[in-house]
Amino acid sequence: MSSRLLTETPDVVTVGVDLFERTLADQGVEVTAVDWRPPSVDGAVLGALDVHRLATANAEAFDRLVAAEPHWVGIASARDAVGIETGQFLHAGPPLTWERASGPMRGALVGAMLYEGMADTPDEAIAIGERGELELAPCHSAGAVGPMAGVVSPSMPMFRVHNDAFGNDAWCTLNEGLGKVLRYGAYADEVVERLTWMQQVLGPALADAVGVHGPLDLRSLVANALQMGDELHNRNRAATSLFVRELMPSLLATDRPTAQLAEVADFVNGNDHFFLNLVMPAAKAATDPCRDIDGSSMVVAMARNGTDFGIQVSGTGDAWFVGPAGVPDGLFLGDYTAEDANPDIGDSTITETSGLGGFAMAAAPAIVKFIGGEVADALEATQSMYGITIGEHPAYQVPILDFRGTPTGIDVVRIVRSGVVPFVNTGIAGREAGTGQVGAGLVTPPMEVFTAAVEALADRARAG
Amino acid sequence: MSSRLLTETPDVVTVGVDLFERTLADQGVEVTAVDWRPPSVDGAVLGALDVHRLATANAEAFDRLVAAEPHWVGIASARDAVGIETGQFLHAGPPLTWERASGPMRGALVGAMLYEGMADTPDEAIAIGERGELELAPCHSAGAVGPMAGVVSPSMPMFRVHNDAFGNDAWCTLNEGLGKVLRYGAYADEVVERLTWMQQVLGPALADAVGVHGPLDLRSLVANALQMGDELHNRNRAATSLFVRELMPSLLATDRPTAQLAEVADFVNGNDHFFLNLVMPAAKAATDPCRDIDGSSMVVAMARNGTDFGIQVSGTGDAWFVGPAGVPDGLFLGDYTAEDANPDIGDSTITETSGLGGFAMAAAPAIVKFIGGEVADALEATQSMYGITIGEHPAYQVPILDFRGTPTGIDVVRIVRSGVVPFVNTGIAGREAGTGQVGAGLVTPPMEVFTAAVEALADRARAG
Repeated sequence: MSSRLLTETPDVVTVGVDLFERTLADQGVEVTAVDWRPPSVDGAVLGALDVHRLATANAEAFDRLVAAEPHWVGIASARDAVGIETGQFLHAGPPLTWERASGPMRGALVGAMLYEGMADTPDEAIAIGERGELELAPCHSAGAVGPMAGVVSPSMPMFRVHNDAFGNDAWCTLNEGLGKVLRYGAYADEVVERLTWMQQVLGPALADAVGVHGPLDLRSLVANALQMGDELHNRNRAATSLFVRELMPSLLATDRPTAQLAEVADFVNGNDHFFLNLVMPAAKAATDPCRDIDGSSMVVAMARNGTDFGIQVSGTGDAWFVGPAGVPDGLFLGDYTAEDANPDIGDSTITETSGLGGFAMAAAPAIVKFIGGEVADALEATQSMYGITIGEHPAYQVPILDFRGTPTGIDVVRIVRSGVVPFVNTGIAGREAGTGQVGAGLVTPPMEVFTAAVEALADRARAG
Repeated sequence: MSSRLLTETPDVVTVGVDLFERTLADQGVEVTAVDWRPPSVDGAVLGALDVHRLATANAEAFDRLVAAEPHWVGIASARDAVGIETGQFLHAGPPLTWERASGPMRGALVGAMLYEGMADTPDEAIAIGERGELELAPCHSAGAVGPMAGVVSPSMPMFRVHNDAFGNDAWCTLNEGLGKVLRYGAYADEVVERLTWMQQVLGPALADAVGVHGPLDLRSLVANALQMGDELHNRNRAATSLFVRELMPSLLATDRPTAQLAEVADFVNGNDHFFLNLVMPAAKAATDPCRDIDGSSMVVAMARNGTDFGIQVSGTGDAWFVGPAGVPDGLFLGDYTAEDANPDIGDSTITETSGLGGFAMAAAPAIVKFIGGEVADALEATQSMYGITIGEHPAYQVPILDFRGTPTGIDVVRIVRSGVVPFVNTGIAGREAGTGQVGAGLVTPPMEVFTAAVEALADRARAG
């Protein structure tokens, strides 16, 4: 495995004129169509970067990313997994305070306080938040990721994913299903009761099952699911089905009562998104070893907290480059409309960061029924991402593109040069705390976060 | 639901010149490329058909086909299901005798005799066959279908599929897995032992599970699997996964010992083709109500017995139109080569007959890794079948073709007029009895069977 930049003939990149693209395509030349816009930083900034050093560092970052061998190996409480205590909570996206938190983020924190027994009513929980008595930290800062609000409290069970290639772990809570769920900011009794059942029944049963099964190979499962119409962010139907098939015999081999096993099977089967909370830590486990490579412009985290959209880049340490989170648009559930949508939220963009999700849309044409748009848009999304990524994933392939690897390793320099931002598909949370999910669709990241990252890389390059 | 012929603007059908096709495609016109050859019957034959009556009859046949609502409702022994007794066997394809049977067909009959206790050794079984003491009949004549050799003996458990729309049933044995299995002509001890376990454990457990579950909607499951990269003939990975997910909670709710449930889960999970034996009777249950529509040229069965390729047509009663079975070519397992391949065998072409399999290849680009060829061939296969089918299936859709319905309802008149024969993908059995599967690939049906059917329709039309 090596960097596409170093080893391959560059593809032709066409700008603007569609007819030209079609003519080349007729001749069998590989074409990547890009909406060209002028670079968003001035030439002096891009000029400060050492092109050779950049290529070498990015090749190293890409190689580490695609060499990942994530396996699901166990389950532990957040207390043991990420070391948080009562009153401490993890959340999605870059750092955040209660004051700046959006409706669904506050809703999820309220639900987590009720679940942990810190408050008896939502009002009591809100008062705790307003008094500044919560300690908040990003999931990413604790080796974890969380979908939507991504709130993690000490008693929640978490999946442990181990990257065999580098020896590191990543963590994520278990998926609650759809509708009124904590990660979308709901905190009704049913939400808290479900979390309690997950802690008492689901987590322990899955822990026993993976103990019987042994490490479950997520790289292989993801590769298979991509050949079965998933893009592994908003469509996880195939991955969830393969996961159930793989795990069920081991679940049956545990000594738990059959009625309890049936409850667990029912719960997991009832939710096509169950696997999301396994692919996310698989992606986190893959991107973490790519951090801190001097000079690399590869994105290692892309995440939203419902207020801010932020990225972290390999060559700039733990710095978050942050801009305003956009409001997603797409298909809305029931009577909800775009008016009800909260700004973009969740760590699930770790899938895009590792070559999945919006970057693998061509593998999942049926997703347009969930997020809106046409089948051609799904193909175009993946095609356009080859222009801002370092290489193609050797294991994550798209059959309809003749098994071409997904565009992998987002490069902030390529983004700034081309003006093309990452393609992100996402669930949409309601703005009001307590609402839950209102839809699913697409969102445009703010260009300024990529520009800021390139400027920081240039500053470091100038400093030597 | 109505006939495409009657209600839609005809698509442009281009012949020969690829550039012309591409130019139309650039203009957004729907194009079906067809390898045009001169009609294989003379004009007088086609002239004898009443075009209006043909269209009306085919519209009725097509409407019945796509209105089918197949559900898996139970399991019964072949003795109860299709009324066969010791010494009686069903087989795939058109009628056949022991003398004309190929290696894998004889091998499967030998295995079935050993399994039924009619013989203690393969030699004894062969002697029974040679003495003409076996009663053989096509599965299709008994409301059943069987993959590859398709041999059914009285003790085998069979899936019962009920078509809610028309009240009819269809039957199929349970899939044994890959490698050395009866349907590919193997009869070693492991084959017979597995059949016995299927009779004693698998069948009863699945019977209990479907009893708990209630009728399982196969139309919906097939529609979902088409959006997950299956074409439902040689690729059933998604369908099998969805089936396991759907059934597992009910299996757990039976009062069978957990260890036995784990055995069953392991067996079904270990075989991506398990669902083939459910989609086949679903297709048979859908096509049977389309039989005996006066004047209809729609194919209601297309099947091979390893020696002959045969079809039955709606407007010509129970007549089989038969020609020599071709030898499939594709990808071979291990050291096997095309030399080891038996001529085409199996009732599994009932999938193509109902708009699946080769007709739905565009939904399953990853299948080229199993049967050979390029991704473009898979798209082309489906596209080319629109020219020889009556309509598009309203529920079976192909996402990558903008959710266009699969080409459904094979029309022998369109075949004879265009010279295009049905596209069939298939498993490949070894020529020698006892070998098992040697590969998977494509096969070309003999044009003469379609010509013969058109001539029979013309004879009937002339007779009034």
